[in-house]
Amino acid sequence: MNDISLKWCTEQDIADPLKQYRNRFDLPEGIIYMDGNSLGPLPIGVADRVAHVVSEEWRSNLVKSWNSADWINLPTRVGAKIAPLIGAKPHEVVMADSTSVNLFKVAAAALKMRPGHCEILSEPGNFPTDLYMMQGLAAFLGNDCHLKTVDRADIAAAITQDTAVVLLTQVHYVSADMMDMKAITRAAHDKGALIIWDLSHSAGAVPVVLNESNADFAVGCGYKYLNGGPGAPAFIFVAERHLKSVQQPLTGWFGHSDPFGFVDDYLPSDGIKRMLVGTPGILAASALDSALDAFNGVDMALVRHKSVALTDLFIRLVESRLVGYGVELATPKDSARRGSHVSLTHENAFAVMQALIERGVIGDFRAPNFLRFGMTPLYLGFEDMYRAVDTLADILNTEQWHEERFSKKSAVT
Amino acid sequence: MNDISLKWCTEQDIADPLKQYRNRFDLPEGIIYMDGNSLGPLPIGVADRVAHVVSEEWRSNLVKSWNSADWINLPTRVGAKIAPLIGAKPHEVVMADSTSVNLFKVAAAALKMRPGHCEILSEPGNFPTDLYMMQGLAAFLGNDCHLKTVDRADIAAAITQDTAVVLLTQVHYVSADMMDMKAITRAAHDKGALIIWDLSHSAGAVPVVLNESNADFAVGCGYKYLNGGPGAPAFIFVAERHLKSVQQPLTGWFGHSDPFGFVDDYLPSDGIKRMLVGTPGILAASALDSALDAFNGVDMALVRHKSVALTDLFIRLVESRLVGYGVELATPKDSARRGSHVSLTHENAFAVMQALIERGVIGDFRAPNFLRFGMTPLYLGFEDMYRAVDTLADILNTEQWHEERFSKKSAVT
Repeated sequence: MNDISLKWCTEQDIADPLKQYRNRFDLPEGIIYMDGNSLGPLPIGVADRVAHVVSEEWRSNLVKSWNSADWINLPTRVGAKIAPLIGAKPHEVVMADSTSVNLFKVAAAALKMRPGHCEILSEPGNFPTDLYMMQGLAAFLGNDCHLKTVDRADIAAAITQDTAVVLLTQVHYVSADMMDMKAITRAAHDKGALIIWDLSHSAGAVPVVLNESNADFAVGCGYKYLNGGPGAPAFIFVAERHLKSVQQPLTGWFGHSDPFGFVDDYLPSDGIKRMLVGTPGILAASALDSALDAFNGVDMALVRHKSVALTDLFIRLVESRLVGYGVELATPKDSARRGSHVSLTHENAFAVMQALIERGVIGDFRAPNFLRFGMTPLYLGFEDMYRAVDTLADILNTEQWHEERFSKKSAVT
Repeated sequence: MNDISLKWCTEQDIADPLKQYRNRFDLPEGIIYMDGNSLGPLPIGVADRVAHVVSEEWRSNLVKSWNSADWINLPTRVGAKIAPLIGAKPHEVVMADSTSVNLFKVAAAALKMRPGHCEILSEPGNFPTDLYMMQGLAAFLGNDCHLKTVDRADIAAAITQDTAVVLLTQVHYVSADMMDMKAITRAAHDKGALIIWDLSHSAGAVPVVLNESNADFAVGCGYKYLNGGPGAPAFIFVAERHLKSVQQPLTGWFGHSDPFGFVDDYLPSDGIKRMLVGTPGILAASALDSALDAFNGVDMALVRHKSVALTDLFIRLVESRLVGYGVELATPKDSARRGSHVSLTHENAFAVMQALIERGVIGDFRAPNFLRFGMTPLYLGFEDMYRAVDTLADILNTEQWHEERFSKKSAVT
């Protein structure tokens, strides 16, 4: 297998049981899109749905559409569509706000459920907004409330009786390291702590088992593997057992038990709607609603199987073809601990990614020196992996040559 | 003037200096749209802009559009477009989240600026989410933090040394009562309190003088008179003097001074961007950005002049034509104290509004017995007022007849 051929890759694509799903995406010609972990591409149907919302629901039917087009229930309808992708029940998930705002809601709610405990435990290098939101929350509450960060590998051991809530991103946004949701959730509960899972790099990419893990809360992003469009609304999961008692501080009118009763006193909805705040954005919600149809009938076990095969292939190709170019793997080699993207390091990562993008291989750069490649099984195949690494090898070869020449010139000057 | 003719109204429309602006809206045929105070209609250009964002910026250019289409700066660009409509400087306004979420941010920030003071002062019957968000904030902070409500007319006198922040909606969502922004802001400052103005029923409808009033904070809605589409993003104003010091607790990555530095510690942007939280929704932001072009070159003084003329005319028509139908005016007769909508009460308000909508006059019902009519000068005219009241008179006449017949039948049975 060290000498993987393009022909072998093509054969894998022909035999791929998920290959027909590529037709569900409107991908530009001539590119290999490996940045679906940052912004998912446009699913078929979304453009028409958005146009319909603008020209029919908004233009022609105006305010009537809150009822006639059922705008009012879009947040729960979209939530129910996301639920099966994350191992949740339909009434445990709602579309709302941004991932950041949702982090505040669930963390504040969790702290409220653990009076006398005020430590939020997370990891250094978590996606920045997760840390920032917890810093803001802790500073706002004052007293002893604080964020403690411990390396990912040491999290389970760092949970103590003082821990109010553990906030972790299941699949790390750079390394793709995937945590054991069941084990970590159990470790938190063993100490009486609650847990929040950030599924931004999991939902739609890897099978997620929130209820099997007995998780308390989760949040996640609508614009990565769920393909809801730039800045798409995010989602919140609250375990059924917490639904009637959970209290979050952003008590807006869409979370009220009777939003159109227009009474002065807040009374939360008795279900997941209590996690809503203001009026939902209907254009964006409709785009996400339509985008989720790309998952209709998709077997997430097959998605995972192909995802592992693609990341494995990519890593093997990197290891066999990029020797001596200063490229290092920054992602676990153990596929059980790996999400659906692969990161590499290179000292000129920024320039290398620019060169890749110019040649139609779209990944992304993350500071200081990471090249990140998302492997989305619904629209990427085995040939794509081959061609991506081939292009990368070609660039590094050229770049290396440039650099050597540049070094020589420098030496002369 | 008690006998206002359709002919007179038509003459007013012909002489109206704003009449050409109706062409900036794609209004359905055969309706009189008097609910722009709930959901503004579709401005010309928005459908094309949204389609372009979907099919070019998202589909074809994918993640590159964060830079190439300048998605990254949409929140401040849109904010700068809103600024002249509310008497603010461009760098004092940013588009963000929902009005509800923004209320939390500015109220929390205001409380932080007034240590030792924990009373939030507002009015009963304010738009519900304003009260709900303050209730959630106060309960979350605990200690002595609380929301106090005092009737609109008594607000100025109720501000004391204990008041941390005053939160008022300039134009009341039902009565259209418009507060004196300068006087109330001065009254708040005289007692050392800060002030937050909710401009949801003001922005784009009446001239707003935030800086002339020396206001501290404001929030407002993007989908009413700004016509940004259903659930459009909202906005926040922070007075320049507070920009470098204001601290709001929703410290998301888009509020960071270097969002793509991906460092672990939050450091707020030194300007209005610190009021941002998560990734902005680009579809909705683009729609609002395009919708605001409907205000290009519009003289808000002329808008106000026409708005007063329209509401005056509507009220006079109601008073002359609807005598004896149980209709009462629920809006100030003094135009200086009136925003850009008119509310009436009627015991069968819900049924009456349904009948109006069936006949193409779109207003809305608000519990328990309000008929609400928005007069948007950019696309409504004097004839529209005449025809709306004419239709209402016709319905009430018919309804009254129905009711009498129903009463007689009831008496027989």
